[in-house]
Amino acid sequence: MARIALDASGGDHAPVEPVAGALEAAQNLPESCEIVLVGSRAEIESELAKHGPTPSRISIVDAPQKIAMDEKPLTAIRSKRKSSIVVGLDLQKSGEVEAFVSAGNTGAVMAASTLSLGLHNGVRRPAIATVLPTMRQHVLLLDAGANVDCSPKELVGFAQLGAVFARDVFERPDPVVGLLNIGEEAEKGNAATKEAHGLFTDNQHFAFAGNVEGGDVLTGSCDVVVCDGFVGNIVLKLLESVGRTFTAMFRKSLDAKVLESGEMRGIFKFLDYSSYGGAPLLGVRGVTIICHGKSSSKAIANALRVALRSVDVCLSQHIHDEFVENGVVA
Amino acid sequence: MARIALDASGGDHAPVEPVAGALEAAQNLPESCEIVLVGSRAEIESELAKHGPTPSRISIVDAPQKIAMDEKPLTAIRSKRKSSIVVGLDLQKSGEVEAFVSAGNTGAVMAASTLSLGLHNGVRRPAIATVLPTMRQHVLLLDAGANVDCSPKELVGFAQLGAVFARDVFERPDPVVGLLNIGEEAEKGNAATKEAHGLFTDNQHFAFAGNVEGGDVLTGSCDVVVCDGFVGNIVLKLLESVGRTFTAMFRKSLDAKVLESGEMRGIFKFLDYSSYGGAPLLGVRGVTIICHGKSSSKAIANALRVALRSVDVCLSQHIHDEFVENGVVA
Repeated sequence: MARIALDASGGDHAPVEPVAGALEAAQNLPESCEIVLVGSRAEIESELAKHGPTPSRISIVDAPQKIAMDEKPLTAIRSKRKSSIVVGLDLQKSGEVEAFVSAGNTGAVMAASTLSLGLHNGVRRPAIATVLPTMRQHVLLLDAGANVDCSPKELVGFAQLGAVFARDVFERPDPVVGLLNIGEEAEKGNAATKEAHGLFTDNQHFAFAGNVEGGDVLTGSCDVVVCDGFVGNIVLKLLESVGRTFTAMFRKSLDAKVLESGEMRGIFKFLDYSSYGGAPLLGVRGVTIICHGKSSSKAIANALRVALRSVDVCLSQHIHDEFVENGVVA
Repeated sequence: MARIALDASGGDHAPVEPVAGALEAAQNLPESCEIVLVGSRAEIESELAKHGPTPSRISIVDAPQKIAMDEKPLTAIRSKRKSSIVVGLDLQKSGEVEAFVSAGNTGAVMAASTLSLGLHNGVRRPAIATVLPTMRQHVLLLDAGANVDCSPKELVGFAQLGAVFARDVFERPDPVVGLLNIGEEAEKGNAATKEAHGLFTDNQHFAFAGNVEGGDVLTGSCDVVVCDGFVGNIVLKLLESVGRTFTAMFRKSLDAKVLESGEMRGIFKFLDYSSYGGAPLLGVRGVTIICHGKSSSKAIANALRVALRSVDVCLSQHIHDEFVENGVVA
C-alpha cells in the first residue's frame, strides 16, 4: 500500500485541477494506492461534491493556509505552517504518506522538501529532474531549475541522481549520461563543464557518453542529460513554448479534417510538454514530485503515477544506497 | 558598390553549396553587389563550369589552403596563411572587400576576424548574433556561442551590439532588449544575470524589457534577447534540432497531400532554422557573417544578403558610434 499526499491548493487552477486529477488517478492507479488531498477541507469537499460519490481511497487533511505562486519561498514556509505545502511534507516526514505531489510555488516546495525531509548523505544539492519525450525514448534532463552556478562536483551528483532514476523508473539497467555542453570535445565549454568533463570521465558510477550539444537533447541518444539548473530551466521552458507555438501555428494553418486526424492528435500530444507533468525533486529523503503551475487534471494524474512508481521501486532508498554505500565522487 | 568575399572552401558541402549560393545571390541581389569567391581556384572554376557562363560580378581569389571544421582555430589560422578564411579576411582588412561570409570552422572565423579586423573601441568581446523567427516578428538572440562565462558588463555590451543591429537591419528605431533568465523578478537568476539586471536597468543606451524566460524567446515580445554564449548556443542548437525532429515526425505521420499543401510548406519553412543562415559576428571592425556548417546554397545566398544589408546600412560604423561616441557602460 502506498499513500500519496496531493497539494489541493497548489497551482494556477487549484483546487479544480488537483481534485479532478486525484479522481482521474483513482480510476487508473492500483487499488492499493491511497490519495490524501491536502488543503482547505471546505474547498476540497465542495469541489469533490461536483463529481459525485468520492472513492474511499481519497481522503482529506485540512491545511487552511495557502502559499501564493509568487511568494518568497523561505518566508512563506516559515510563516505559513498550516499551508498545504508544509502540512503535506510534514505528513511525509512523519510517515503518514510516502510521497508529496504539488503544482504550487516551486521554490516553496523545494525549500520545504529540503528542510522537512532533509537530503540523503552525500547529496550536495537536490535537482529537479524532467522527463522529456524524444523520437526514440524518454530522456531525463536535470537540473531543470533547482540550482544555478553549479560546481563541477554538483554536476556529478546530478548525474548520479539521474542514473538511479533511469534505472528505477525508465527500467534501463545501464543508463548513459551526457553532459550538456557547446561542443563535443573535452576542452569545449565553460569553466564548470570543462572541469566536470574530467570528473565525469573518471567516475565509476555511470556510463558517460561525453559532451552532448543542444541538438542532441531530443535525439534520445542518452538516457540522462546533465546541466546547471539555469540552462536546464531555459531549455525546459523553451521546449514548452515551442510546443505551444507550433500547436497554435498548426491550428491556424491546417484544416479541421487534418487537425482531427489521429496522426495530428499524436503530434499535438507529443508537443504538449506540460502534460508530461511530474518532475521529481531528486536527492531529498523521500519522494517529492513538482508539477507545472498550469497543470491540468491529466498532468496531475500523471504526476501521481510518477509518485507511486517512485515509491514502489524504492527510488529514495536506491539514491541513499548510491551515495552512501557506493561512495561519492568528492 | 559593395564587394563581399565568400569562403568557397568553408562548410560541410564546400565548394558545391557556396558556389551555388553565390550564383543564386547573383540572380537576386542588386547589380552593384560583387561577390568574390575565395578558395582553391581550380576547384571553384570546375564547380562554376557546371552552371554555365559565370556572371561577371562573380570573381575568384585563390586561397589554396583549407582549414578543416575540427581544427584548433588559433593554430589553424596561424599556420595556414593561405587558407580561404585568412585570405578572405585579409581582403576585407585591406579594403578590397567590405564583408566576409563563411560556413567554415566557426572558431577560426571568429579568431581570424578578431585578429585581422580588430574590435571597435569599447567592445570587450564580439558576439555571434542569430536571427530567430517567432510568431510575431524576428528576434535577435546573442551571444549564440562566441563567448562563455560572460561578465555582467559583457552582457551589457551584447545588448548594445544587438540594439544597433535591430535598428539598422530590423529597421526598428527603438528596439527592446530582454535578458534571458530563469524568472522575471530582478533577484532571480545566476550570479551574472542578477548583477546584469541592475546594469541593464541603469543603462541609457537601449530600452530594457526586464528578464525574459526560455518560454519568451519565441513569442517575439522583445527585439533582442541577450545571454551568455553557452546558453545561447544550446538554445540555438536545440531549436534547430526541434525543427528537424518535428519535420521528420510530420513527414512520417501525415499523408502526402497534406505534406504538399501550401500551409505545411510554410510550416516546414518556419521550422528550417538552418535556412535563416547568416549570423553576424558583431563588434569587429567590419562585417563577418557566420553560416552553419551544413548550409545549403539557399542559406549561403541568404547570408550574402545579410552581409550586403550590413554594409549598405553602415552597421559597423554605427557600432563604432554606439560604443565610442555614446560612451560605454563600464
